[in-house]
Amino acid sequence: MNFEMIRAASVRAEGHVRRTPLLSSPFLNELAGRPIYIKAECLQHTGSFKFRGGWSALSALEPEIRARGVIAFSSGNHAQAVAHAAALHGTSSVIVMPADAPTVKINNTRALGAEVVLYDRGTEDREAIGSALAKERGLTLIRPYDEPQVIAGQGTCGLEIAEQADELGIEKATVLTCCGGGGLTSGIALALEKSPHHVRPVEPYGFDDVARSLATGSISRNNRQTGSICDAIISPQPGDMTFPIMQRLCGPGLVVSDDEALRAMAHAFERLRLVIEPGGAVTLAAALFHADQIEGDALILTASGGNVDASMFARALQTLETP
Amino acid sequence: MNFEMIRAASVRAEGHVRRTPLLSSPFLNELAGRPIYIKAECLQHTGSFKFRGGWSALSALEPEIRARGVIAFSSGNHAQAVAHAAALHGTSSVIVMPADAPTVKINNTRALGAEVVLYDRGTEDREAIGSALAKERGLTLIRPYDEPQVIAGQGTCGLEIAEQADELGIEKATVLTCCGGGGLTSGIALALEKSPHHVRPVEPYGFDDVARSLATGSISRNNRQTGSICDAIISPQPGDMTFPIMQRLCGPGLVVSDDEALRAMAHAFERLRLVIEPGGAVTLAAALFHADQIEGDALILTASGGNVDASMFARALQTLETP
Repeated sequence: MNFEMIRAASVRAEGHVRRTPLLSSPFLNELAGRPIYIKAECLQHTGSFKFRGGWSALSALEPEIRARGVIAFSSGNHAQAVAHAAALHGTSSVIVMPADAPTVKINNTRALGAEVVLYDRGTEDREAIGSALAKERGLTLIRPYDEPQVIAGQGTCGLEIAEQADELGIEKATVLTCCGGGGLTSGIALALEKSPHHVRPVEPYGFDDVARSLATGSISRNNRQTGSICDAIISPQPGDMTFPIMQRLCGPGLVVSDDEALRAMAHAFERLRLVIEPGGAVTLAAALFHADQIEGDALILTASGGNVDASMFARALQTLETP
Repeated sequence: MNFEMIRAASVRAEGHVRRTPLLSSPFLNELAGRPIYIKAECLQHTGSFKFRGGWSALSALEPEIRARGVIAFSSGNHAQAVAHAAALHGTSSVIVMPADAPTVKINNTRALGAEVVLYDRGTEDREAIGSALAKERGLTLIRPYDEPQVIAGQGTCGLEIAEQADELGIEKATVLTCCGGGGLTSGIALALEKSPHHVRPVEPYGFDDVARSLATGSISRNNRQTGSICDAIISPQPGDMTFPIMQRLCGPGLVVSDDEALRAMAHAFERLRLVIEPGGAVTLAAALFHADQIEGDALILTASGGNVDASMFARALQTLETP
């Protein structure tokens, strides 16, 4: 896992992955007490940065391997990213999802061209189902974060951040990343290793496995897997591959509440005209509500995704009326 | 008013006006029955394309004239655009607004650095107030659309559309523009005059002054000035300067309902993760709900702005639940 792999992923991504804009607002600068810049990954294909990793992984496969198809376990953004990247590469994808996943997510993943295989969370083992299918059909498994080419793909977001910071004259920034398993965080940290910018991961309260692991120096798990609206960035624990990278390159983790994420979504609606999902808004929440814990004259914040349903977004908008 | 003025405005805009992304979604293509691309001007500074015109006008003034300050009449997007462009040029702005304008718009315009002068719509004449102030202080009036440098600024959006269409391999598109006084429409039409792309303006039902004027060949007025949620693109009649350009270069106008605009906003939320205001969503509404009236293998749609309040946006989201 190194910088050259990110560069190579970036070349493969050209013309396929969107260079998302780095946005700002004088109103948000005022609220945050310093210039802040939002890297709008919610505008990426399939609505999240995950498409970078999906594209990178698919495009890195040998053509004859790729032609047999790929498989992923996900009910969320990784599912749609892999499905779409596979379809655009002219190959097939199988996405293994829990049978109780929201119908809209199942339908969207199918509409993007995937074969969706449902399993019962209570009685079935998704790994066993996936392994059997993969073996039977010769499918390649695309892991959501502990996968070098996926990390390389997410790292392309970091290359763009470095370029855009240069274009905007931002000399040195603290870069906050929305952090689940650490694919985006470690990819960006590697991409920015030789830059003046410094990365810090942000997580929701109660699901701060990365923050705790960084603090103690060894991987620790979350007690729960559900119970935060920031579902897009909840994972059991930091990846075996992503954690050493984060440990070497990242500053301490930051933690925000669900309510702060909702308020940040509302500010992004009002001042940036962006739809950000709760997990994608934790970085803006940290910048707005935990400024005292963050060093740096300027902040760059990844807004990692925008796949949020209307009722949750309406909840976020309500926070504008009760300041 | 010519292409060279748009080119010159584009040079002056570099590094100051955002190159907004041209976005798409396979889901929207499916709904529209052909590839559609959304030019996200809601992501422009101050949340609408108006910043292009404001920046162009301010940057074209002689320094000693500019230093005396500028004045504009507007309660909407033009107000914020002129205020912000003036502040960034280090000069002052006076914005004349009706006293019954929403408090949030007055406050935002002030926060962007403008002096807001309020008048009573019932008893006072804003032109008289503005003229007196302009004369007294030597301010330059920046009209919202019938102003060559403003049209040139809006035209820079057309130059970007031509470039981005090339990058995406779109050979020939019908370009739909959100149309009020015609500044954006005429600017884009001029910018695309020598291109394979063709412009058609879109308006809300009951406020289709441009469509009627194009159909009859002479300027006709709207009967009303209020009563559409698409307030950002309501103007009394096409401009004396913009109409001849539209007449020469544009195809017939299209008209959509408020309800269609709301539904289009909801689709943009769900599939593009963009916040678009009702007036900015009329083009997507035309593409989705009036496809039979629009020729062309591919469509490019301006989403002209995103300054919408939370309650109106919540109304749009509700259309997703009642398909």
